[in-house]
Amino acid sequence: MSRPRPATIRDVAALAGVSVGTASKALNGRGSLRPETVARVRQAAGRLDFRPNQAARDLHADRTYTVGMITTDTIGRFSIPLLIGAEDILGAGQVSVLLCDARDDPIRERHHLQVLLSRRVDGIIVTGRRAGTRAPIGTDLPVPVVYAFIGSTDPADCSVVPDETGGIRLAAGHLRSAGRNRLVHVTGPEHHHSAQIRAAALTGLVADPLFGEWSEAWGRRAAGLLLARDLDFDGVICGNDQIARGLAEALREAGRDVPGDVAVTGFDNWDVIAEASRPPLTSVDMDLDGLGRTAAGLLLEAIDGAPRPGRHPHPARLVIRDSTV
Amino acid sequence: MSRPRPATIRDVAALAGVSVGTASKALNGRGSLRPETVARVRQAAGRLDFRPNQAARDLHADRTYTVGMITTDTIGRFSIPLLIGAEDILGAGQVSVLLCDARDDPIRERHHLQVLLSRRVDGIIVTGRRAGTRAPIGTDLPVPVVYAFIGSTDPADCSVVPDETGGIRLAAGHLRSAGRNRLVHVTGPEHHHSAQIRAAALTGLVADPLFGEWSEAWGRRAAGLLLARDLDFDGVICGNDQIARGLAEALREAGRDVPGDVAVTGFDNWDVIAEASRPPLTSVDMDLDGLGRTAAGLLLEAIDGAPRPGRHPHPARLVIRDSTV
Repeated sequence: MSRPRPATIRDVAALAGVSVGTASKALNGRGSLRPETVARVRQAAGRLDFRPNQAARDLHADRTYTVGMITTDTIGRFSIPLLIGAEDILGAGQVSVLLCDARDDPIRERHHLQVLLSRRVDGIIVTGRRAGTRAPIGTDLPVPVVYAFIGSTDPADCSVVPDETGGIRLAAGHLRSAGRNRLVHVTGPEHHHSAQIRAAALTGLVADPLFGEWSEAWGRRAAGLLLARDLDFDGVICGNDQIARGLAEALREAGRDVPGDVAVTGFDNWDVIAEASRPPLTSVDMDLDGLGRTAAGLLLEAIDGAPRPGRHPHPARLVIRDSTV
Repeated sequence: MSRPRPATIRDVAALAGVSVGTASKALNGRGSLRPETVARVRQAAGRLDFRPNQAARDLHADRTYTVGMITTDTIGRFSIPLLIGAEDILGAGQVSVLLCDARDDPIRERHHLQVLLSRRVDGIIVTGRRAGTRAPIGTDLPVPVVYAFIGSTDPADCSVVPDETGGIRLAAGHLRSAGRNRLVHVTGPEHHHSAQIRAAALTGLVADPLFGEWSEAWGRRAAGLLLARDLDFDGVICGNDQIARGLAEALREAGRDVPGDVAVTGFDNWDVIAEASRPPLTSVDMDLDGLGRTAAGLLLEAIDGAPRPGRHPHPARLVIRDSTV
């Protein structure tokens, strides 16, 4: 493998026939040099494919144009769109992302934080696989931190969180405006933050929620429970797309028409589940890509000295498919 | 938000009552200082939570302990396990990962490459959402590059690629050893690298493959086609888990017993699909996490001056579930 030594400022100076100091001034646009000299140095730099040493430049600037992104509990389905959104905004501002995966391990998380600080990142985005809140990643940190998807328990921190309450209410409103008034809510484990908050958001709109798991198998079992109870229901708001898919398919197999007899909504708008379901699922989309963009934008503002502390809910939207209309 | 200025070497020196030069020597273990002086300086550094400036250190070392990871076509389902595996190996070696997403845009990719080189990364991992090959990311680059999942067209480059041929043959061998001899192959689009290579690997073992899409809907349609042709078949090797799920469920709904009448295998071992399928799917697992670890290990070896050029196939394994036994 041929790996030539990268060109240095000395090589550029030699090729241009000037001193190292002059070459440096020409490339940095400092000092008063004749335009021909500047042109000659820059031409030499181009011919040698010279890249100024970023580490040397960083010493002389306040910023490293690097941002750390710590996922607290393994990069996963929810972190990816966040990451893509954040990277989009940061990359446009020439900011590079240092990615760290703490995998639910506090020691690993502390280690990553130290590494990021020793690398003098300009700021940090903290994210996680679950919504809800977590303790601040540190106190009196020398750089701004923005929490994305998962929020900080400290209200003085800046957190961008999905509006789960507004999202599930979009599903309920959609069903009611389609004339469905006997609604049921089937969701994930009772102890899970998202199951709790979404169930609470539906208080008064639906009967007691059925808590279970975030799986298709639970959706199928829940359909069986509802049918066995001989309940009169015409709409089911599900806590995620997998539950909705299992439930819709089990209702169909039991001879109920979806959406004719029962309309069904999912949550997450996970295309691979929502679109493959029979029928395809109407679903709440938390717009995680947009949430990531917002978080990155707030971090850049904080780095520029204009922090926006507090909890910033990011709106959800409803994607309508055949399971409700 | 309280953001104290980070402590500098001057603060440490002042607190310890020594010169900046002495403080620096004490922290770097250089020069000949009295042990009490070293202890006093280190104690001061600890009290001030002083972190040596990484950028300053980097200037004096050959390495930045940073590796760039460029995904060529959007971070996705296949890149995540790769990324997790690579980050695991690199993090253990105190190497940080700079993540860049080129999103199928050559200009963006070139830009990211320039940024990584200007940041003096020690090496680069190039990955993508699809297996197959791509042109090298650059020529005569000053740092080693390892291609992961997607390979380089240049055989002198180091590429770690999934063994798709071996993987699909594991599925065929499993079915044949269970006495299934009338096998069919249903897979993705004919022009797709993975569909082609997996179909080629089955030549002589199965009849002409049915090419279609990577979706459940195609799996369901393919089941209908096979039944309509009145073909005598007792095993279907599918190109991915979504096809296998659609096909297995459509066969079941048509009154065929899976696996009693027809055994079905998937590919990817995507838990959310393979486990939710009725019955759950036997599936080929490309071990992308392991592939990412191998790629990261080879990159570290190359950085240490021991490159291992060539194409390194990473073995797949078969995960057996109810759809075949």
